Amino acid sequence: MKTKRVPLILISNDDSINAKGLHSLIEVMRSFGKVVVVAPDRVRSAQSHAVTVEIPLTLTHIRSEENLEIYTCSGTPADCVKMAMFKLLKRKPDLIVSGINHGLNASVNVIYSGTMAVVIEGCMHGIPSIGFSLGTYNPDADFAAAKVIVSQIVEKTLTNKLPHWTCLNVNIPNKPLNELKGIRICRITKGAWAENFVVRKHPIHKHDYFWLAGRFVSFEKNVENPIPDDMGSVANDFVSVTPIYVDFTAYRTIETLEKWNLSL
Amino acid sequence: MKTKRVPLILISNDDSINAKGLHSLIEVMRSFGKVVVVAPDRVRSAQSHAVTVEIPLTLTHIRSEENLEIYTCSGTPADCVKMAMFKLLKRKPDLIVSGINHGLNASVNVIYSGTMAVVIEGCMHGIPSIGFSLGTYNPDADFAAAKVIVSQIVEKTLTNKLPHWTCLNVNIPNKPLNELKGIRICRITKGAWAENFVVRKHPIHKHDYFWLAGRFVSFEKNVENPIPDDMGSVANDFVSVTPIYVDFTAYRTIETLEKWNLSL
Repeated sequence: MKTKRVPLILISNDDSINAKGLHSLIEVMRSFGKVVVVAPDRVRSAQSHAVTVEIPLTLTHIRSEENLEIYTCSGTPADCVKMAMFKLLKRKPDLIVSGINHGLNASVNVIYSGTMAVVIEGCMHGIPSIGFSLGTYNPDADFAAAKVIVSQIVEKTLTNKLPHWTCLNVNIPNKPLNELKGIRICRITKGAWAENFVVRKHPIHKHDYFWLAGRFVSFEKNVENPIPDDMGSVANDFVSVTPIYVDFTAYRTIETLEKWNLSL
Repeated sequence: MKTKRVPLILISNDDSINAKGLHSLIEVMRSFGKVVVVAPDRVRSAQSHAVTVEIPLTLTHIRSEENLEIYTCSGTPADCVKMAMFKLLKRKPDLIVSGINHGLNASVNVIYSGTMAVVIEGCMHGIPSIGFSLGTYNPDADFAAAKVIVSQIVEKTLTNKLPHWTCLNVNIPNKPLNELKGIRICRITKGAWAENFVVRKHPIHKHDYFWLAGRFVSFEKNVENPIPDDMGSVANDFVSVTPIYVDFTAYRTIETLEKWNLSL
């Protein structure tokens, strides 16, 4: 009889090794298997899927406990996953989890998010991968409800696996468990960031400088779709689980473009 | 009779304001309308859709010519587009083009690419957007064939428009025009980067440091799909035109996940 192998779980994030959300995630994941953490050494929010190609990286061992190894890396969230998978780990992880992010990553924020870069990087290599985000930027946020939800979704993922090239983006309202209304399988909310740059003057050189300071604009009123959208669901106190397909090809547009008759 | 408005065209890239590919693209695009360029002030390759939130940005006017304004920005490619759209331009551009990148952005490289972040940023705001990449890293590459292809694809895009939430990723083999076999509408090649970190020792502190040095691994032998893949097409001397759908929801997986019966 084959002994069941203890799952090897890789954890990273974009809020850095010091984030409370990361350590909350570590706590939950230790009950599922052997945990290895490789997290950025500083905040790397909004770094998307950036990788470091112009400077070298460092990897530093922080501490070991039973079934837990913690490292920090000088690179981006995507670099952390690459470093773990191709330099540190002896075998492919059975699961990659990211977060718990301080702040939501619903809608198009999946595109800007370092949290979700971790997940997409794992997914490309065929590893079941899940990103978790909580609806508050508070560094001392309460992750109690989030931990219960993480635990359930991880358990279901380890049992059911995920379809090829597909990963999960989980967004959790910042509410106690008894105020949450349920868990919804969602699509991405249609919308985009309308940026409002704050303009200031450099105190010495006197040139203008600009702070990116946008607000999210929903385009949902033009959308007819029976599948609930993730940002709207979270706003209504539901946990959203959005499956992300990492092959971004617009398959439905192939035929349209064929009719353009492009030729040399 | 309504006078036809001259198209307003925004150009950016990730190889910086100094790249030959950018200036080749500017040359082509001037025949289509009024061109505004906002390009990064330094190389921002592999920056994906990163945006700058921790430090402010600067925007510098470089020069004006008839129907051409050139600016450089201290931010990422995505920042450049946001700066142009929300600070600089008086109206929404009619078209956003990115590149011509020195190096291909086929397959999953669309995820890492700053060139394609420009395009995706435009697409989210409903602007027809196209990224162009040439199959060589040579800073003095020959863009003659690429310019002919850019011209044709831009013309067709301005005529036909693009479906909602859809943009184009065009990859051009590094060959003279008469050696190219045609233009193919493609899907993304299934594959991923297998990283091989080069390890060296810091000359003073003696700790290891790591250079990310991967190679692309194709998973295509397991894929059965009649639509040609982009990387394979370019390798066979075809120009690839891959439509990208910016709503990354895995719609086909919604039903599967519903069966997990997640609940609080």
